[in-house]
Amino acid sequence: MRGSAFFQRAFRTYREHPTFFKLLIVSTVSGGGLLTFSDASPFQGLITESSQNEGKKKKVVVLGTGWAGTSFLKNLKSSSYDVQVVSPNNFFAFTPLLPSVTNGTVEARSIVEPIRNIVKKKPYNVEFKEAECYEIDPVNKKIYCRSNQSSTLDGIEEFTDDYDVLILAMGARVNTFNTPGVEEHAHFLKEVGDAQRLRKSIIDCYERASLPSVSEEEKKRVMHFVVVGGGPTGVEYAAELHDLAFDDMAKLYPSAKDYLKITLLEAGDHILNMFDKRITTFATEKFQRDGIDVKTGSMVVKVSDKDISTKERKTGEIVSVPYGVVLWSTGIATRPVVRDFMNHIGQAKRRVLATDEWLRVEGCEDVYALGDCATINQRKVMEDIAAIFRKADKTNTGALDLKDFKEVVGHICERYPQVELYLQKNKLKSFDALLKNAQGDDKKQIDIETFKKALSEVDSQMKSLPPTAQVAAQQGEYLAKCFNRKELCEKNPEGPLRFRASGRHQFHPFRYRHFGQFAPLGGEQTAAQLPGDWVSIGHSAQWLWYSVYASKLVSWRTRMLVISDWSRKFIFGRDSSKI
Amino acid sequence: MRGSAFFQRAFRTYREHPTFFKLLIVSTVSGGGLLTFSDASPFQGLITESSQNEGKKKKVVVLGTGWAGTSFLKNLKSSSYDVQVVSPNNFFAFTPLLPSVTNGTVEARSIVEPIRNIVKKKPYNVEFKEAECYEIDPVNKKIYCRSNQSSTLDGIEEFTDDYDVLILAMGARVNTFNTPGVEEHAHFLKEVGDAQRLRKSIIDCYERASLPSVSEEEKKRVMHFVVVGGGPTGVEYAAELHDLAFDDMAKLYPSAKDYLKITLLEAGDHILNMFDKRITTFATEKFQRDGIDVKTGSMVVKVSDKDISTKERKTGEIVSVPYGVVLWSTGIATRPVVRDFMNHIGQAKRRVLATDEWLRVEGCEDVYALGDCATINQRKVMEDIAAIFRKADKTNTGALDLKDFKEVVGHICERYPQVELYLQKNKLKSFDALLKNAQGDDKKQIDIETFKKALSEVDSQMKSLPPTAQVAAQQGEYLAKCFNRKELCEKNPEGPLRFRASGRHQFHPFRYRHFGQFAPLGGEQTAAQLPGDWVSIGHSAQWLWYSVYASKLVSWRTRMLVISDWSRKFIFGRDSSKI
Repeated sequence: MRGSAFFQRAFRTYREHPTFFKLLIVSTVSGGGLLTFSDASPFQGLITESSQNEGKKKKVVVLGTGWAGTSFLKNLKSSSYDVQVVSPNNFFAFTPLLPSVTNGTVEARSIVEPIRNIVKKKPYNVEFKEAECYEIDPVNKKIYCRSNQSSTLDGIEEFTDDYDVLILAMGARVNTFNTPGVEEHAHFLKEVGDAQRLRKSIIDCYERASLPSVSEEEKKRVMHFVVVGGGPTGVEYAAELHDLAFDDMAKLYPSAKDYLKITLLEAGDHILNMFDKRITTFATEKFQRDGIDVKTGSMVVKVSDKDISTKERKTGEIVSVPYGVVLWSTGIATRPVVRDFMNHIGQAKRRVLATDEWLRVEGCEDVYALGDCATINQRKVMEDIAAIFRKADKTNTGALDLKDFKEVVGHICERYPQVELYLQKNKLKSFDALLKNAQGDDKKQIDIETFKKALSEVDSQMKSLPPTAQVAAQQGEYLAKCFNRKELCEKNPEGPLRFRASGRHQFHPFRYRHFGQFAPLGGEQTAAQLPGDWVSIGHSAQWLWYSVYASKLVSWRTRMLVISDWSRKFIFGRDSSKI
Repeated sequence: MRGSAFFQRAFRTYREHPTFFKLLIVSTVSGGGLLTFSDASPFQGLITESSQNEGKKKKVVVLGTGWAGTSFLKNLKSSSYDVQVVSPNNFFAFTPLLPSVTNGTVEARSIVEPIRNIVKKKPYNVEFKEAECYEIDPVNKKIYCRSNQSSTLDGIEEFTDDYDVLILAMGARVNTFNTPGVEEHAHFLKEVGDAQRLRKSIIDCYERASLPSVSEEEKKRVMHFVVVGGGPTGVEYAAELHDLAFDDMAKLYPSAKDYLKITLLEAGDHILNMFDKRITTFATEKFQRDGIDVKTGSMVVKVSDKDISTKERKTGEIVSVPYGVVLWSTGIATRPVVRDFMNHIGQAKRRVLATDEWLRVEGCEDVYALGDCATINQRKVMEDIAAIFRKADKTNTGALDLKDFKEVVGHICERYPQVELYLQKNKLKSFDALLKNAQGDDKKQIDIETFKKALSEVDSQMKSLPPTAQVAAQQGEYLAKCFNRKELCEKNPEGPLRFRASGRHQFHPFRYRHFGQFAPLGGEQTAAQLPGDWVSIGHSAQWLWYSVYASKLVSWRTRMLVISDWSRKFIFGRDSSKI
């Protein structure tokens, strides 16, 4: 997980809330001035709805305390809910810094914040339960949970809980693509514990390569570190590992240094394939200079305890190479509990849990899903094309002028964001231009067939959102704000027109705003891809990375700790103790 | 382990090296000014012996990287050795801060320093091997080792190594007194990993006590924290746990708070029984006010998974109480590998490995032992009384004047430190006074019988040294300095006269200097017992504790980190995340 929703604040001119603060603090930290942005919430003071509800408060159960769940909890401001949080971790972890934790650049404690701290001063009632939900019963509105305290406390505690509203924010598991041996032998990098284990394994390899009785061949094996997956996490980890090895470990383990090899395996054609080509090229060349072996078109087919086997796309050949540590960072898959839930609610055939554009789980009442555990199933224009036409055709004539569409264009564009993407892609100035193109010059009126023709290509622009921290955080914030304004919007719906029914949708649908993505490349260099195809590579992007990450940390505590960790690294280097 | 060798520097007027520096840095750290002492080594520049030895260098193997081993490595300055270090940990840990790590006051990484860093710039050749020595063969001068890297690397690596000189500094294991269930169910606090596990268990208990389905009785059980052993570690841990619970956790776990109970069990009559009575009383009263239940005369006879059983000395009754976490901190015992070694060298009947006053293992050539893994078997005056008399009686008359002793008195006092302790205890000004007392007023001459009579009580003052960090560090430093001056002292022995042989001992025997001991009592209060029965209790002693501990940290890195950790705690409180 990567990226940041920070730009969201820094650049947006949000329709409802045009004002926001940007607070620039230049804190000169030993080792270099560090730019820290902080932003006061643009929504503060706007929550004025009546919160002294009569009667029983609605019980909202939040499953998960990752980006989505925590963002929801942070932004929920209405006191008309009783909130229950169930998560196997009693903290939120700032996952984009996990590669740094692995290499000892940042302390694990610095990137976590106890959930109890986060919700301490919220106006709603809240209770946290450290447990894992293993079953959801949407019919009886119940969840089944299991505590995950250590076995020394004897006996797993099980309990059920009911909900009025359920929010699924449990994230995803690592996708092993059923590759044999991955679960058993590879490391992952999704949780704080993963990072700590990975760190110990790397140090173990260094120590083993320094033992006198170990053969040359074995030293070569244990010092071969393989990263599978050329996405931002894999690339960042490979880069951080390289820096750790050359900046710090080389001095302490002079004999092990000569055996070191870092390999990055990517099944596709390029590393960082979701980034601009300039970044891909820069990263590939930098890694080449650094001696990191980047192998593209190389798919892992098996991991044994000592060897990793790949199939080379070009030759079809299967190659087996000895390794010391494998990091598996290829993508995500649905968690078993979510999979079961999907079977219950008629989503058995889907790959990922689907929600509508308001993050409501399809086929199920009062359940929302956000973050990596779900995708938004964007409604197609073509499915509703007749209804849309009818809505515009108030007088039921069956043929419309351009101006007849004026009233609904805004609603169409909001309800079906693919329309706007299509206009952008085809460099059309407005919806009118789209209709005119289909209409031809001779006709004045548009009938349903012309309308269909005009919009027939639009749905091709539908894209599912990437499983990033940025998306999850925005979804959490969006949902919390809907919850905050529920009563208000029940009376005065603010969403687009309902095309297949009467009235308006209660809320605006969720709309993701992409504010850029980072790929740290080591050596204090980072690649940043910002909106509008703006690309920045190098040291300046690294400082931007520092600033953005510092500003997005969940609390002032973690912010200070991470900044002081970075300063420590600048001054003292990274630690090599096996803890 | 506790205490500090700091005072050693701050107060001593060492006979050989009368000058030393004391550098006082008042570093104002956010949250309060913190006094940090730093001291440049008084020995710098004094090591002038010829280090360009001809021929092969002696191979010195050091087992262990605790206080003793690390202190030896830090102080060894001669380049005439090849040093091999074998230890299961690739770092040195500042163990007196382990209770702070457990409660999240100090970060684990802040109290460790990689051994490779410590020895990096030393003038001697050095190699570190992360492994555990499981057998010592003193006949063939070989050690057998086993690597302890994680099993993911597949297969334990075994190797043997030979030595010219072996230094045992492996510390001790926890003494369970064979109490059933302790190994399985209790926590210890000897290693960094212990502290991390203990921390997780405490947080687990809080989380479990916050679950809805857990019964009242079970909540009471899991929130009962028991500390066994009223020594400084146990007392400090109980105090820190109390502070954690009331300063930080109470706010985050309001429902768990009411179930909290901390019990301190001590088999003896008082807690802190090696301290002054004033301290014991103060600590007991403070704990009473804090609600920590101190039970003296209560010996643990069994620990099951949920209950701890004690035998009350007064009543003989066996009481069983449910608990959530037990910390076992009662004392130390010999490690199995040292026990085997003792059997090999004819020390099978001893409880602890014995060395002479020069830290040489008895019954074995070229093996030294220091720190917790050995005790000094102080030679008795009465065993050598005839030889001492003969040495003084140069002319073999069988009767001596007081002045005849003049030449040997210094040597006697150095060789048998109990003599000085006896003089102090009986408020005798000098050795002469002791002899005069035995001699009676009428006689002028002292014969062997009078001499025996005079010294007959002296050996009662022999004391074995406590197993503290302070002792271990001083022994490591002492031995390193002997090694540094080996060639010099071979030519010009500097030790006391050999009474049972001719000539002088090569080196001065090891002499422990006690510079005080701390017992932190929580709430920013500490009890300090300083030399000369000077006792300080309260906030000022806490600041002394901060200063001394900061100054004794092994490197500037750890020093800065710990100070910044303390500042973090002052500002943000302790963290409650389960990591």
